[in-house]
Amino acid sequence: MTYDLWYWDGIPGRGEFVRLALEAGGIPYRERARQPDASLVDDMQAPRKQPPFAPPYLVAGRLTLGQTANILLYLGDKHGLAPASASGRYWTHQLQLTIADMVAEAHDTHHPVAASAYYEDQRDEALRRAANFRAERIPKFLGYFERVLDGYGDWLAGGRRWSYADLSLFHLVDGLLYAFPRRMGAVAGRYPKVMALHARVATLPALQAYFSSGRRLPFGDGIFRYYPELDGD
Amino acid sequence: MTYDLWYWDGIPGRGEFVRLALEAGGIPYRERARQPDASLVDDMQAPRKQPPFAPPYLVAGRLTLGQTANILLYLGDKHGLAPASASGRYWTHQLQLTIADMVAEAHDTHHPVAASAYYEDQRDEALRRAANFRAERIPKFLGYFERVLDGYGDWLAGGRRWSYADLSLFHLVDGLLYAFPRRMGAVAGRYPKVMALHARVATLPALQAYFSSGRRLPFGDGIFRYYPELDGD
Repeated sequence: MTYDLWYWDGIPGRGEFVRLALEAGGIPYRERARQPDASLVDDMQAPRKQPPFAPPYLVAGRLTLGQTANILLYLGDKHGLAPASASGRYWTHQLQLTIADMVAEAHDTHHPVAASAYYEDQRDEALRRAANFRAERIPKFLGYFERVLDGYGDWLAGGRRWSYADLSLFHLVDGLLYAFPRRMGAVAGRYPKVMALHARVATLPALQAYFSSGRRLPFGDGIFRYYPELDGD
Repeated sequence: MTYDLWYWDGIPGRGEFVRLALEAGGIPYRERARQPDASLVDDMQAPRKQPPFAPPYLVAGRLTLGQTANILLYLGDKHGLAPASASGRYWTHQLQLTIADMVAEAHDTHHPVAASAYYEDQRDEALRRAANFRAERIPKFLGYFERVLDGYGDWLAGGRRWSYADLSLFHLVDGLLYAFPRRMGAVAGRYPKVMALHARVATLPALQAYFSSGRRLPFGDGIFRYYPELDGD
């Protein structure tokens, strides 16, 4: 079965967390909203008993799965992208939800008032929220993942192979390096295991074809944005 | 096995979503941080291979589960608090994650800059964020749940019995009624099925002992707070 992944074209966004799992797992999928005949807005409004609240969503035969972490839970179960044990499954998912929390906070650094309004109209608020994110939240989250890797070794859920949470942490760190290069430059040395995981995923053989394909979109004006005034040491 | 639920004492917080599932399911648990010998801060720092990022967390024998939605996924699987089919399980979890998104946004109406700072120090930003939440986000989320119930009937995941997502939607709506009484008064009529679900859970026989026990804490200064200036029609 070929999955249909639906996500806004033009930015990696939350779709990228799903994409990385599909790509690294060698799982066939179509990037549905990038096809000429497709309209994400229309598809979102199509009658469905289990409608997604927002993209990304994955159509898997008769099933439509929404919520990034839920899609990854499904793919993890179905394609062995997480430990097979019950405790390993819940643990990997727990990590994914913590990654999702940090992703939402990274977004809100530039949109602390309204996702629907322009950055320029909430710049003052963004300056304050980003300062707090840099000072408190980056150390808290990255310190947590460092602690986890300290206990586990190369991968967040242990073992000799990556899980979907490792791919997501890679993309999260990648986004932070893009949006907060000065801050990340100042603190990266405190999180050597997190940074090593980032490098490890960046060089995964299973992802090289994707990385060189041109299909991995630049961050642009998505969740992770670079505004120099929101960055700092 | 008696579970240990760890959450800050004094507010319902995110712990309440877990508590409602345990109570409605008749599942034995101890409210660990409310016991005189217990320190949540100390326990959070205890060495653990799978440390939680934040409360609530549930200790289930040798397993420690963090992230509210992940705990509910586990309890759902273990105690039949969600449909047994694979599609029903992912669907219930997807709904729970959407509820969690709205809960986080409700929190940020009064803390749009920093969770660690006082409300009074981010009141200007809160006024703007709350206005957007009332105008755009309440209709978007509640409209979504109304649409789901339109397709399903009494319960979000169908069938003749509640799932953990129904209990969580009840608590979310309860929190919105507390924090935004004017706004909810103005729009509740548009979401009759959501409001009927709220009433249905409020009168569930399995929850009456809990509701009258005094253990269900008032919202107070938790996720849902009542500041008259953040409310409006």
